[in-house]
Amino acid sequence: MSHRTLGVVILGSGRIGSLHAEIVAHETPGAELIGVIDSSPAAAQILSQRLSVPSMTFEEALGRADVDAIAVCSSTDSHVESIIRVAQAGKAIFCEKPISLNLAQVDEALVAVNKSGVAMMVGFNRRFDPSHRAVREAVVAGDVGDVHIVRITSRDPAPPPLEYIKVSGGIFLDMTVHDFDMARFVTGSEVVEVFAQAATRVDPAIGDAGDHDTVVVNLRHADGVLSVIDNSRQAVYGYDQRVEVFGSRGVASSQNWPLHSAVTMGAQGGTSAPLQNFFLERYRRSYQLEWRSFVDAVIDGSVMPVTGADGRAPLVLGMAARMSVQTGRAIAVSEVV
Amino acid sequence: MSHRTLGVVILGSGRIGSLHAEIVAHETPGAELIGVIDSSPAAAQILSQRLSVPSMTFEEALGRADVDAIAVCSSTDSHVESIIRVAQAGKAIFCEKPISLNLAQVDEALVAVNKSGVAMMVGFNRRFDPSHRAVREAVVAGDVGDVHIVRITSRDPAPPPLEYIKVSGGIFLDMTVHDFDMARFVTGSEVVEVFAQAATRVDPAIGDAGDHDTVVVNLRHADGVLSVIDNSRQAVYGYDQRVEVFGSRGVASSQNWPLHSAVTMGAQGGTSAPLQNFFLERYRRSYQLEWRSFVDAVIDGSVMPVTGADGRAPLVLGMAARMSVQTGRAIAVSEVV
Amino acid sequence: MSHRTLGVVILGSGRIGSLHAEIVAHETPGAELIGVIDSSPAAAQILSQRLSVPSMTFEEALGRADVDAIAVCSSTDSHVESIIRVAQAGKAIFCEKPISLNLAQVDEALVAVNKSGVAMMVGFNRRFDPSHRAVREAVVAGDVGDVHIVRITSRDPAPPPLEYIKVSGGIFLDMTVHDFDMARFVTGSEVVEVFAQAATRVDPAIGDAGDHDTVVVNLRHADGVLSVIDNSRQAVYGYDQRVEVFGSRGVASSQNWPLHSAVTMGAQGGTSAPLQNFFLERYRRSYQLEWRSFVDAVIDGSVMPVTGADGRAPLVLGMAARMSVQTGRAIAVSEVV
Amino acid sequence: MSHRTLGVVILGSGRIGSLHAEIVAHETPGAELIGVIDSSPAAAQILSQRLSVPSMTFEEALGRADVDAIAVCSSTDSHVESIIRVAQAGKAIFCEKPISLNLAQVDEALVAVNKSGVAMMVGFNRRFDPSHRAVREAVVAGDVGDVHIVRITSRDPAPPPLEYIKVSGGIFLDMTVHDFDMARFVTGSEVVEVFAQAATRVDPAIGDAGDHDTVVVNLRHADGVLSVIDNSRQAVYGYDQRVEVFGSRGVASSQNWPLHSAVTMGAQGGTSAPLQNFFLERYRRSYQLEWRSFVDAVIDGSVMPVTGADGRAPLVLGMAARMSVQTGRAIAVSEVV
Repeated sequence: MSHRTLGVVILGSGRIGSLHAEIVAHETPGAELIGVIDSSPAAAQILSQRLSVPSMTFEEALGRADVDAIAVCSSTDSHVESIIRVAQAGKAIFCEKPISLNLAQVDEALVAVNKSGVAMMVGFNRRFDPSHRAVREAVVAGDVGDVHIVRITSRDPAPPPLEYIKVSGGIFLDMTVHDFDMARFVTGSEVVEVFAQAATRVDPAIGDAGDHDTVVVNLRHADGVLSVIDNSRQAVYGYDQRVEVFGSRGVASSQNWPLHSAVTMGAQGGTSAPLQNFFLERYRRSYQLEWRSFVDAVIDGSVMPVTGADGRAPLVLGMAARMSVQTGRAIAVSEVV
Repeated sequence: MSHRTLGVVILGSGRIGSLHAEIVAHETPGAELIGVIDSSPAAAQILSQRLSVPSMTFEEALGRADVDAIAVCSSTDSHVESIIRVAQAGKAIFCEKPISLNLAQVDEALVAVNKSGVAMMVGFNRRFDPSHRAVREAVVAGDVGDVHIVRITSRDPAPPPLEYIKVSGGIFLDMTVHDFDMARFVTGSEVVEVFAQAATRVDPAIGDAGDHDTVVVNLRHADGVLSVIDNSRQAVYGYDQRVEVFGSRGVASSQNWPLHSAVTMGAQGGTSAPLQNFFLERYRRSYQLEWRSFVDAVIDGSVMPVTGADGRAPLVLGMAARMSVQTGRAIAVSEVV
Repeated sequence: MSHRTLGVVILGSGRIGSLHAEIVAHETPGAELIGVIDSSPAAAQILSQRLSVPSMTFEEALGRADVDAIAVCSSTDSHVESIIRVAQAGKAIFCEKPISLNLAQVDEALVAVNKSGVAMMVGFNRRFDPSHRAVREAVVAGDVGDVHIVRITSRDPAPPPLEYIKVSGGIFLDMTVHDFDMARFVTGSEVVEVFAQAATRVDPAIGDAGDHDTVVVNLRHADGVLSVIDNSRQAVYGYDQRVEVFGSRGVASSQNWPLHSAVTMGAQGGTSAPLQNFFLERYRRSYQLEWRSFVDAVIDGSVMPVTGADGRAPLVLGMAARMSVQTGRAIAVSEVV
Repeated sequence: MSHRTLGVVILGSGRIGSLHAEIVAHETPGAELIGVIDSSPAAAQILSQRLSVPSMTFEEALGRADVDAIAVCSSTDSHVESIIRVAQAGKAIFCEKPISLNLAQVDEALVAVNKSGVAMMVGFNRRFDPSHRAVREAVVAGDVGDVHIVRITSRDPAPPPLEYIKVSGGIFLDMTVHDFDMARFVTGSEVVEVFAQAATRVDPAIGDAGDHDTVVVNLRHADGVLSVIDNSRQAVYGYDQRVEVFGSRGVASSQNWPLHSAVTMGAQGGTSAPLQNFFLERYRRSYQLEWRSFVDAVIDGSVMPVTGADGRAPLVLGMAARMSVQTGRAIAVSEVV
């Protein structure tokens, strides 16, 4: 790339698209926000005004020479088509997770990307969270030794709207997908077997909608590590995000952040603040670092820190988890792929 | 009971018997250590001298009027016979866990106890640990709301000798048995389904001996709660004992204790002490409180805080866990009993 | 004020001026950055380009109708003159601390502000830090009861350049001034007596320059509270900022934040991250909230959360501390004022 | 010493004497409790029965060949006479702090001890607390570098009876004396200057009795370190005992222990247990280790870990603190001695 600043356009101006646009505009050295695209021109208009950048059509963005990368942050069902068009236009791709809920379509997208040779990164932002990353770094540095057990807790503060749950692909593809990625990330090892238990504990309406709100998922990795994930749609004390890697030389774990650091002690004991509420607070830093990694990798032409294959693998594990719940047995990943 | 002080004799003068003898002798108001019994007179001699109490035979203890209770702390395979004899002698029984590794024998012992009408408590000491107990109390007080997920981590500092592993009944009956009890204790709900994953990660010789050293066990309770337990035979940083109960109104959890509370901070970050090494340090307080509960319950004639049924249930779950490892599927507890 | 958005110009484009400009431009709802001023046009130019706002002269800013407030972030010795001119122009004033190192000049500025009737807030940003603020709120809520003792620790990661130290007014006016403000803030009580101990422990060159790098300062408040402050110019583990308020019903304290939340445990014990390095990280949130408070107070015409008197008081305490070091005795504040 | 077990007699059967007797009897390898002495035979009787050792007179103890050491745990005003008699009898001395409230008498005792050549240790038990000791060890190991600032917080859960306060020598000699010792212990440096602030915040009756209940004391050490101590007679959340040593390479600090480790998190935030209530809980381990050190040093004939001079120095500092409160200025220790 001949220039030093990466021109970026954001496709999608919903909650996550707006976040990415803001981070590219103000918090990403080496990137310039060229414009925003939305199928809903009104939403794009608001965002474009707030960030003082033009709103444009997808076609326009694909055709502009100063656009080096397009971030696909639109609704999941339109991801694959968008990826294919951006790839054909020869621009780098940042794609929000999941690539698609349909494995065949994921593969179609990956083929198009490979064929065009463009760089693509999938937005598993938690890999860039400084605390989870420090856990991974402790593993890489050998501080944990051989890994034996991974524990991941991931609980949302409150369930999403039922309408969203109905199109989300279910809790395994919507929530656990992040934890599948985390298990692969911190161990550096693929998963070969999945067992899952699921329950409806938070809201019967979620069960009526065909989904679960409380799940525990066990993974066996290719190198023998056992991982266990627990998810809930509702932790009333805030966004609970913890990763623990245990092994022959020790244990590394990431903790939650309270809203503030003050504590009080009285005759009845101590009190402290609830946790940061949700991902916009807890993971803002991870989004910043995610963008810096993407920009650096595109400019340097180096390997993407989260590849298309990294985007595909958690989808497979989510499908295995669903199958495990249906059958009551551990599912070999090879049964799914 | 007409007198206020409970006369206690300890059967077995190994590590755990010696501990109980010391606690009864010096740290249990309302109890008096009358003597110690051991099939190995030499070992009993040392203990009797250290605590200034007589060493005696089992027969002698059974026949003495000032002996109100006998603590069965001998080797597991002799528990049932001892229990039956103590029950027939009409004395209260404190029995170290497990009652037996054989379910039929457990039932034989429970029948004898019921028939004689003596009080019996099984030594699941962790229920009396002030931190785990505070977790249970938070559940009872409603601070957790409806329970959704329980997480229990239990890791020993180092594996026992291989000779012990060969006769221990395996990790599920030797280690996990405590965690099965904890899951029942903190939830107050029976377990109906068990799934287990097992691996040999610490020492291949353990696998060669037919056991595992690293396991993850999932439980589904009658009331729908999902519990997940992870065990390792070797945590190099000390004895790792944590319980977490998550529910509709919050989460309660017990943490580990470091060897001391000092921390240092330097340019490279903070350092702190390793954890307390093993159960003699971590759970000493629980043994004291366990004895106080036993003495109070015998004197008051109230319900034992850990019953014979509480001693039986974890054995069944351990058998289900073994079956799950063999079959790769979730086992209904009803398949075992 | 007839409009809803506050037009702000930043005077001074050094480190702190740039920070305020950025926060006004991107992170302060209700405010608009109209431009930046600097005596050094080159520095202002860089900042103006980065934030896409015009660089302008002081005169220009004073004359523009769309400028509602000017933030005085230039060098300390020019503060008073700038304040007077902004006051005369009838615009609201945000003034970085300290107003001046000269008490007579501070009073001159306060007179001018009072006379003109404009709003002025002094930039004691730490009052807006969520953790310190939660400590104050615990006091106000009565959780601490009657306050007995306040402990404030404030240690910089590394000394500033010697050139800065020579013009800073010394450690009491440069560093401790924040802690004097904090002691007044968390107690809500004026200080009546000051005792100080000072030493040169970090770098002899600081002593040679006539300053100290390590000080302990004791305060007695009008309501009888005892406060104790300790400062160091160099904490190699990061920016150490803690406040503790102890009283009849309990204690409230704010803790430091590590760079990340990950911890590891091995056979040698635990390790954790160093603290956030300095005020740009630790207090960024406080600057955001400071600006929101300023904007709200100007728009609402309500009392400023940090007044000119709040800017003056710590200067007096710093002078008393210097006098205490010279005389070896406690100094009544009435001796200074 | 020709035998391996140290014969110990405890003089005084009040709260602290009973504690020492129990620890010697059951928790001190290498020591044997020979008997207990009390001017009140009834109290000694109870203790002697509880521990199954004889109650005896002081004369009897002094004359017995199997008594190697006498622990002086009687009321403070009788310490010196007892010390002198034990020294003349050629037995080792363990003396509870303070040796005396009268400096001349302290010196008289030290002269007698030196003349007789017996070993004497003064009971500053906090030096043996594993957490405070780890702070000292971090200093010795160089982890803190050159020490710059020491902070010591020491707050009792509740004031003692007024009768005790009237004879205690005042808060500086009764409470702060421990902290003076701690400041000398962790730094390894003598104190040369003392400044103190005192207030009555907890209970006016304490002030009416001529004492204070809330004090802050500043020390300057011979090597330039600044220490600051804060004390309160009443911390409703439990016994607050913290030491922090800050220096050129970092900071080491000891933290408090809660009653249990369980924490809960709900929508309103976290809750945790109050602190351990008082010294019997917090410092039990320190008393055990204190006795082991004493026994080892007597048997080995090595230097006592807390010498008579260590017992004298804090008394001098307490006197200087009183003088500072009276004069409002820093007192050179040389003014007192």
